[in-house]
Amino acid sequence: MLTFWFEFASTYSYIAAERLRASGEVPPRTAWRTFLLGPIFQAMGWDTSPFNIFPAKGAYMWRDVERLAAREGLSFHRPTQFPRNGLLAARVASAHAAAGWLPAFVCGVYRAEFADDADIADPAVVRSVLLDVGAEADAVLAAAESERAKAALRASTEEAGARGIFGAPSFTVGDELFWGQDRIDDALAWRSRPQS
Amino acid sequence: MLTFWFEFASTYSYIAAERLRASGEVPPRTAWRTFLLGPIFQAMGWDTSPFNIFPAKGAYMWRDVERLAAREGLSFHRPTQFPRNGLLAARVASAHAAAGWLPAFVCGVYRAEFADDADIADPAVVRSVLLDVGAEADAVLAAAESERAKAALRASTEEAGARGIFGAPSFTVGDELFWGQDRIDDALAWRSRPQS
Repeated sequence: MLTFWFEFASTYSYIAAERLRASGEVPPRTAWRTFLLGPIFQAMGWDTSPFNIFPAKGAYMWRDVERLAAREGLSFHRPTQFPRNGLLAARVASAHAAAGWLPAFVCGVYRAEFADDADIADPAVVRSVLLDVGAEADAVLAAAESERAKAALRASTEEAGARGIFGAPSFTVGDELFWGQDRIDDALAWRSRPQS
Repeated sequence: MLTFWFEFASTYSYIAAERLRASGEVPPRTAWRTFLLGPIFQAMGWDTSPFNIFPAKGAYMWRDVERLAAREGLSFHRPTQFPRNGLLAARVASAHAAAGWLPAFVCGVYRAEFADDADIADPAVVRSVLLDVGAEADAVLAAAESERAKAALRASTEEAGARGIFGAPSFTVGDELFWGQDRIDDALAWRSRPQS
């Protein structure tokens, strides 16, 4: 089983989500798990994205994602604020990891964020995406504020850290970890290895 | 023209050098330029490799390089010291970027470092690799200590920084930058794009 670990503020996670969805690597075949990078970055001594802290890394990332999006045929515009606060979207995704609309929701949030420069922290933006994908938007948003949804996201974030995840997107196959959208094929190949 | 930017202390540069050499991407078709990550990391506030500073990144890298080396059929053993001081090897490579033996020398130094756990800061180790590849070892080592060789490596390191390079290996095609051995194919594809 391949697990796709993504964070809603992550540009490269947008590319990865679209690639996985286009190739049919969606639940239940492939698990889609969201988590928060904030606590993981804090443990590394970073109070924001490393793309903001290290200018050369940031300049590279913006150009690289632009190139990758063009290659994949995806719309991409550098947002006016980075990183966005993806907490609400993450609570929704975490609480509905098995919903049929989950991949469309995830990609819809990313497109709002990285193609349309919308603020995904705004419940109206998340609600609009939920409606687009045919979810019961009001019930889903109410459930996202429940203690259960909050606890589920915290648990995912803790599991990501325990698995050694330090960035997004990441991919796990059993205990094997692959970091970066450019490693999707390696992760898929690992899943296909003969069992020892 | 593709330029391969590498640093002798970098594990992923080892994988990249071997892959490029195996596929014939060597001078004069592809430029091989070494540089020093130390000054670039210092500008980012790091006094050693980020793989030492950030434990999760380090744990991932050691496992990832092990997997990649196995896939490429390369010998790899985690060295007893990391990073090694590659200054002498870099001065040699920088001063002989067009030598026919350059790719074999680069790969030989990496194998000494990452397969045989040798200290590549030791002139005897570099000398042994030079002899293996048919270079005039003593003359090359003497030239590596010249002001000209030192200035050439400083200039390469400054150019790497000016080009926005922040890690190794990196690849440039004109002003386009690609970071990581996993992006070799993207860089080659960029080189093959129709000229606009």
